[in-house]
Amino acid sequence: MVKRIGILTSGGDAPGMNAAIRAVVRKIIFDGNEAYGIRYGYRGLAEGDIRKLSVNDVSDTLSKGGTMLYTARYPEFKNKEGQQKGIEQLKKFGIDSLIVIGGDGSYQGAKALSEAGFPTVGIPGTIDNDIAGTDFTIGFDTACNTALEAIDKLRDTATSHMRTFIVEVMGRDAGDIALWSGLGSGAEQIIIPEAEFNMDEIVAQVDRGRERGKKHTIIILAEGVMRGADFEKALNERGDYHARVTVLGHVQRGGAPTARDRVLASMFGYTAVELLNKGKSGVCIGIQGKDIVYNDISKVLSGKQRTTNPYMALYDVNNEISY
Amino acid sequence: MVKRIGILTSGGDAPGMNAAIRAVVRKIIFDGNEAYGIRYGYRGLAEGDIRKLSVNDVSDTLSKGGTMLYTARYPEFKNKEGQQKGIEQLKKFGIDSLIVIGGDGSYQGAKALSEAGFPTVGIPGTIDNDIAGTDFTIGFDTACNTALEAIDKLRDTATSHMRTFIVEVMGRDAGDIALWSGLGSGAEQIIIPEAEFNMDEIVAQVDRGRERGKKHTIIILAEGVMRGADFEKALNERGDYHARVTVLGHVQRGGAPTARDRVLASMFGYTAVELLNKGKSGVCIGIQGKDIVYNDISKVLSGKQRTTNPYMALYDVNNEISY
Amino acid sequence: MVKRIGILTSGGDAPGMNAAIRAVVRKIIFDGNEAYGIRYGYRGLAEGDIRKLSVNDVSDTLSKGGTMLYTARYPEFKNKEGQQKGIEQLKKFGIDSLIVIGGDGSYQGAKALSEAGFPTVGIPGTIDNDIAGTDFTIGFDTACNTALEAIDKLRDTATSHMRTFIVEVMGRDAGDIALWSGLGSGAEQIIIPEAEFNMDEIVAQVDRGRERGKKHTIIILAEGVMRGADFEKALNERGDYHARVTVLGHVQRGGAPTARDRVLASMFGYTAVELLNKGKSGVCIGIQGKDIVYNDISKVLSGKQRTTNPYMALYDVNNEISY
Amino acid sequence: MVKRIGILTSGGDAPGMNAAIRAVVRKIIFDGNEAYGIRYGYRGLAEGDIRKLSVNDVSDTLSKGGTMLYTARYPEFKNKEGQQKGIEQLKKFGIDSLIVIGGDGSYQGAKALSEAGFPTVGIPGTIDNDIAGTDFTIGFDTACNTALEAIDKLRDTATSHMRTFIVEVMGRDAGDIALWSGLGSGAEQIIIPEAEFNMDEIVAQVDRGRERGKKHTIIILAEGVMRGADFEKALNERGDYHARVTVLGHVQRGGAPTARDRVLASMFGYTAVELLNKGKSGVCIGIQGKDIVYNDISKVLSGKQRTTNPYMALYDVNNEISY
Repeated sequence: MVKRIGILTSGGDAPGMNAAIRAVVRKIIFDGNEAYGIRYGYRGLAEGDIRKLSVNDVSDTLSKGGTMLYTARYPEFKNKEGQQKGIEQLKKFGIDSLIVIGGDGSYQGAKALSEAGFPTVGIPGTIDNDIAGTDFTIGFDTACNTALEAIDKLRDTATSHMRTFIVEVMGRDAGDIALWSGLGSGAEQIIIPEAEFNMDEIVAQVDRGRERGKKHTIIILAEGVMRGADFEKALNERGDYHARVTVLGHVQRGGAPTARDRVLASMFGYTAVELLNKGKSGVCIGIQGKDIVYNDISKVLSGKQRTTNPYMALYDVNNEISY
Repeated sequence: MVKRIGILTSGGDAPGMNAAIRAVVRKIIFDGNEAYGIRYGYRGLAEGDIRKLSVNDVSDTLSKGGTMLYTARYPEFKNKEGQQKGIEQLKKFGIDSLIVIGGDGSYQGAKALSEAGFPTVGIPGTIDNDIAGTDFTIGFDTACNTALEAIDKLRDTATSHMRTFIVEVMGRDAGDIALWSGLGSGAEQIIIPEAEFNMDEIVAQVDRGRERGKKHTIIILAEGVMRGADFEKALNERGDYHARVTVLGHVQRGGAPTARDRVLASMFGYTAVELLNKGKSGVCIGIQGKDIVYNDISKVLSGKQRTTNPYMALYDVNNEISY
Repeated sequence: MVKRIGILTSGGDAPGMNAAIRAVVRKIIFDGNEAYGIRYGYRGLAEGDIRKLSVNDVSDTLSKGGTMLYTARYPEFKNKEGQQKGIEQLKKFGIDSLIVIGGDGSYQGAKALSEAGFPTVGIPGTIDNDIAGTDFTIGFDTACNTALEAIDKLRDTATSHMRTFIVEVMGRDAGDIALWSGLGSGAEQIIIPEAEFNMDEIVAQVDRGRERGKKHTIIILAEGVMRGADFEKALNERGDYHARVTVLGHVQRGGAPTARDRVLASMFGYTAVELLNKGKSGVCIGIQGKDIVYNDISKVLSGKQRTTNPYMALYDVNNEISY
Repeated sequence: MVKRIGILTSGGDAPGMNAAIRAVVRKIIFDGNEAYGIRYGYRGLAEGDIRKLSVNDVSDTLSKGGTMLYTARYPEFKNKEGQQKGIEQLKKFGIDSLIVIGGDGSYQGAKALSEAGFPTVGIPGTIDNDIAGTDFTIGFDTACNTALEAIDKLRDTATSHMRTFIVEVMGRDAGDIALWSGLGSGAEQIIIPEAEFNMDEIVAQVDRGRERGKKHTIIILAEGVMRGADFEKALNERGDYHARVTVLGHVQRGGAPTARDRVLASMFGYTAVELLNKGKSGVCIGIQGKDIVYNDISKVLSGKQRTTNPYMALYDVNNEISY
């Protein structure tokens, strides 16, 4: 019997979400089943903004940032009532299982649907990389490269003027983007939620660099620590540092996904369908090493924000090589 | 007799300055003369931070952003005293003429040196494109493309979320970057110092777009009009627009120069040396159409900020095709 | 009375064609008229592959390479019979004038239609920049930057290995891409159809560079001169140069258009509609300096391939600064 | 006592080698020891092209492609005599241990030195990703993204013209670049040394695509299977496919390294020094999952070219989602 599988994206968009949607849709149709796209996340689910997707509907989407299914915030889905509306729509369209691409918030909805008996699988899609049970999330690699390219550009002008630049990157609870773009750009300082920072030490290091004839200092600041403008003010109050902040902002969410993100998204999308094919649900996909894995959504959510950031080694290494 | 020609960069750095330095140095040496690099602009000139440059000193600099000669603000050069210090240093090193790469402020110094009898030629290097007597300045094309790529990325996420994005680009007195990146990205609104804007009309247009089912609105704002954060606040006070501002900032100053900027810079650098060879000075280089031209510095400075922006046609066209 | 204006792209595709199509369609609709897209160039015209386009049909196309209207070679359009088929289709759809985007070959068709009494305007779209009457064609700037980025990458590896790299770029009769990407990348040699070259001199220059300690030699070769593989063979026969050829090929035709190409295409598209609005036809658009201009198609075609390349100054400058 | 550690790069250059050199040098100096750069690989080692490096010598190298230490082929190092020359030079400079960055060939030299009693550690640097004992090598991620961007551009023009494009990517024995850039670009076919291919099936798939209205076919071919020109010829002999080959070539070796490659290279470089600090040698670094690991060089070399490609899953997934 032909199965009908729905797919939606939820929460902040991330580069590679389209690659995941494409893999899901293509794999479903390859298997002889039917794919249904739900637009605007859980809001569209509750409202029935749903239509069948063909192979051609996902052509030439692989290289595009954003999400062709759009996304929306829909707090009502936290309530049973909102969830029930969604399940009714799914039934109305004859859809028998669902794939949700998004971050923690999106997983809450997926968990609720699973617990209500509707087979759902989650795919980690967020530039923040802050999901437990997976080494990487879709969009993280692209966001790091976007940040890195911007920092490379800032370094040109920082060097020419002998300036200190503070670069505020995304990451409320997780310092992953700051860690990767910081070590990748040779930033003198990386300031993240996972580690204490001390303004005295920062000032001392900038001073040491200047004495050594360093032409610039780059400080990467995860947004979760404090606002870049406040950090700029605090640093400039300490001396004649001519520090300037640049807030990279939403630029980090967009752009053509990198090879890494496209491959990851394709493997995740494919595997999500495979799991549903095997009758597996209530789980979310991840990558550990070279292996595509899956974990119970409830387990992943209880480990929210990962108790410790798995990339703290980058922080320590940076301290010893970027000074 | 072997001539000794000095070169310095001054004011804000711009991508392509290195390409101009390289062309100047290589052309000087090709002619059998000697090239002297002055570091940190007029400050380095006054302080004698000067050294002879060889062909190899400018190898592999063509593709690099920033300026290998560094730059600095040095208000003291506005005074006769500062200028005199500079002339003494030039004499000390046996330098008989000077090439200055920079914007309006830098041209003031070049003018003063010329009037004091020291042969000086100016090359327009600033991302703002706000120099009279030339269609384009070095760095402008790169800055437009950097802004454009960022706006393309923002569009991905604006579309996915149905949002309004305000993008603050550089340009205090001149709307050139806003005009080119705005028309180039299909921004619904371009707000520049050269044209009045009316918040009522902007709100009305955003509303019309939404009614038509538009997924996003992009508004490009030149920094000279108002701060992006203030514009964001003003727009959001008018309704439920979820407008978000992104300030591109200093990222626009950096990066590998584009083909256009490298060619322009190379032609400018070459021509500056040629003019000095012919005993011409007190002038600055420009491009008009396909022709490399030169104008009296004093004339260019009196037409400061160009009485009218020569690219206002882009504004009018954008109004009729990006709605 | 509502006018119906058709648009097609023909010949080789070029980045920015979509920006021109978008500008044409948006301007037509802004004026209260109707836009008709003809797919697959003159072949689609003869076969009636034509449909009305709305504002939304051209949304989010501005940043995309290629042409959303597709293109095809259709030699039959050189004959009266093929042209007559096209005119019949235009009449059938009630279309009263036509805009053709393409190169020389495409202009031949536009000229024939005009002479047959069907109002037609041409827009120069080709990466080769080999159209008379315009300083630049749509796609040329993007192609130059694509070539430049590739050459920058090759330089990394050429330097690391002390090698000679030959880079074959597009340009059958015109050396424009070679000239701009060559001067832009600081290539030691630029070999173009417009200038004689002498293998002895090339060998001598490579030798001089080596003696001076140069880490690499880059030679840019326009495809119209000879095949890169043949040049590689000829050079390696002269000595132990380890020369390697890279043929950039069709990569040069694709990619997101640059700011320059998007602005140029938008201005061209807008102006083409304006000309038709004013009853002007049998002409093609161009840019001269900062001005958007138009010329009789027949005049432009008679000056085919421009009697002299207007950018030969780049060649001369490169010889004196890249050695 | 102060230790003196040497570093060289050997074999083909790869983006990220400079990031590894920087990490090695900075970490050595951080530890209070001395870093010695050996230029031109084993040839420079044998010839004593060696000098002490300071912190500033590796400033601003992190983002650059190629290798600042240059590289060379030096078959003489396969012989005891060549090796002995190298060891003598190392002794002459008082260097007590060595770090070698490169691929299989370079590891042979590292193994010989180790076996001759000179403490040596290897770091995998090659775009081919064909080293046993590590999930990824330095340069591979950048090469994949370079290939991907080129394929994205080719897709624009393939779509516009309804053409079949064959893209020859690097990989003599290993299909890794083809697999990642192929799945990443949604190529209809990926042809690699690790899997049989059947021209009949390829032709059948292209035909099926055309029937379904597909606008283009992209075939990725690893160079190790056959020359792209031969494949083009073979395909065009089967029918009217207008297939065109593009050989990406050495462009894949260059360019600014991606975030992934910079982080990987930094971690590898740091760890190599740490291992020497701990008296560990005769090993080479790798990454497995999130862990930086090390293996005996002799073991890694005996598993040369990895008995099976660990990324064959990408091949299988691509077959089910890119059709």
